[in-house]
Amino acid sequence: MGFDRTMIAKQITIIGAGMIGSSLARAIKANDLCETLVISDASSAVCDTVRTLNLCDQVMPDVTKCAMGSDVIILATPVGAYENIAAKICPALKPGAIITDVGSVKGAVIDAIAPHLPDSCHLVPAHPIAGGEKSGPEHGIGHLFQDRWCILTPSDNTDLQAVETIAKLWEGMGAIIEYMGAQRHDLVLGITSHLPHLIAYTIVDTAEQLEDDLKSEVIKYSAGGFRDFTRIAASDPTMWRDVFLHNKDAVLEILQRFTEDLTALQKSIRRGDGTYLHDTFSRTRDIRKKVIGLGEKGKPVPEEG
Amino acid sequence: MGFDRTMIAKQITIIGAGMIGSSLARAIKANDLCETLVISDASSAVCDTVRTLNLCDQVMPDVTKCAMGSDVIILATPVGAYENIAAKICPALKPGAIITDVGSVKGAVIDAIAPHLPDSCHLVPAHPIAGGEKSGPEHGIGHLFQDRWCILTPSDNTDLQAVETIAKLWEGMGAIIEYMGAQRHDLVLGITSHLPHLIAYTIVDTAEQLEDDLKSEVIKYSAGGFRDFTRIAASDPTMWRDVFLHNKDAVLEILQRFTEDLTALQKSIRRGDGTYLHDTFSRTRDIRKKVIGLGEKGKPVPEEG
Repeated sequence: MGFDRTMIAKQITIIGAGMIGSSLARAIKANDLCETLVISDASSAVCDTVRTLNLCDQVMPDVTKCAMGSDVIILATPVGAYENIAAKICPALKPGAIITDVGSVKGAVIDAIAPHLPDSCHLVPAHPIAGGEKSGPEHGIGHLFQDRWCILTPSDNTDLQAVETIAKLWEGMGAIIEYMGAQRHDLVLGITSHLPHLIAYTIVDTAEQLEDDLKSEVIKYSAGGFRDFTRIAASDPTMWRDVFLHNKDAVLEILQRFTEDLTALQKSIRRGDGTYLHDTFSRTRDIRKKVIGLGEKGKPVPEEG
Repeated sequence: MGFDRTMIAKQITIIGAGMIGSSLARAIKANDLCETLVISDASSAVCDTVRTLNLCDQVMPDVTKCAMGSDVIILATPVGAYENIAAKICPALKPGAIITDVGSVKGAVIDAIAPHLPDSCHLVPAHPIAGGEKSGPEHGIGHLFQDRWCILTPSDNTDLQAVETIAKLWEGMGAIIEYMGAQRHDLVLGITSHLPHLIAYTIVDTAEQLEDDLKSEVIKYSAGGFRDFTRIAASDPTMWRDVFLHNKDAVLEILQRFTEDLTALQKSIRRGDGTYLHDTFSRTRDIRKKVIGLGEKGKPVPEEG
């Protein structure tokens, strides 16, 4: 079997077969992006599911064996596991191998992997802006990355050939590539994704702590805002724990601004300052128009129930 | 023309022809719920649109003339306008007339209208849990209330016949009736709707105040949470100003609990307490399951772009 023109690499390894990892596997297979696709997952139950779903050519828990001989290794575990995985696989990587990932934070990812990386290998961090609230390999979607942004955050001295390979990999799955510095990425995503998740988790947890009968009514009449928040707050707990632990500075900085703005609105409610409320509520419509105007590249996958 | 069996009243007047008021008009006409439908709106431009869209039998800005002779008067303006409208129309109401409304707060609505109500007339406050973020009579939807909750909050001594008439009116538009005390309503909706709106407005306004290039990137990568918040924060500013001014106590109480919970999460991020984060993020999934389990009665109308 020859090396096909559409192929990005001879062998690709995906580490972590959750919703995103298994979507990667489906997309890579559907688009013929490699000859051999290997998956590693720490859970043997997940490995069994991957085997049953026939998502790849080889699957096993041993991460080092899986990475050995691969041209591209994609980390798709929660970010908190990266350092441990890097320490294990890096000594076994073949020269020229490229590590990439799908993590929602980028600065901490570089800090976790770079110290272990052999000189002959490359790191091209990536973050596809796509996902869903359901976890596990059975919930992966082959077209998850189609027409969605994928942000690459290579450092200035990363090998250009390696960057191009990873760009082609994502483009092969239908994504639209953008480049950004890691720190900038973490600030922008801190606002668009991490803070909204933190707030949604908080408000749903505030409701969770209500006395039972009031909580039942809140669930019953969950329209008009709360329902959207429950969707966001049903995201994977381990993934999001790691996001907040690894994007601490940006999240705390944005949270500080948010709290100031909320306190000002709270004060205006207490004082009955209708002008302040109206002015604030009018300003926010403009951003909605711009978001809608930019189309759906950033839209989450539809709610599946 | 005789009084049809499906008809709830001979003449119905809707005051305020925004998104909700014009949805009411469409639903009332589509279901033949009255013989004569009258609409009043303070804006003569809106009255012109209502006329062009052929939403009713008579339309004029003069609220007193519109209410005169009607069996049912539905207030569909922002809640802050109710007291002024009640003071104008109440002296002109025919005996037995029933005032109802669609306001998102209920305690303040009773306080605003009851003092003006003649002994021969009735007040049956209502809150349909349905809506969309677009304002104006051209965005009304005839099936907006189909299979959605409508909460009625009559007081203990409200005329039962009047309550039944209003229940039939909403059922005639496809809504599912629930009864609740006004204060309880305001607390439940404070959690499910008012606080989420306040939070969404805040977070989008925090983004609005960012420096220009960062703001552009936030809009561009608005997936994963922020996009949902912009939809909520594009709701009508006047309506929401009035909600917060008129449900002050419940909103401030819920906001206090929310702030305590957010502060605890913030502290756990600062200290790197992954266990606390994971525990919180796990608790919130349970509510999502219950919300999904209860079906879509509380679901907002789909985003139209």
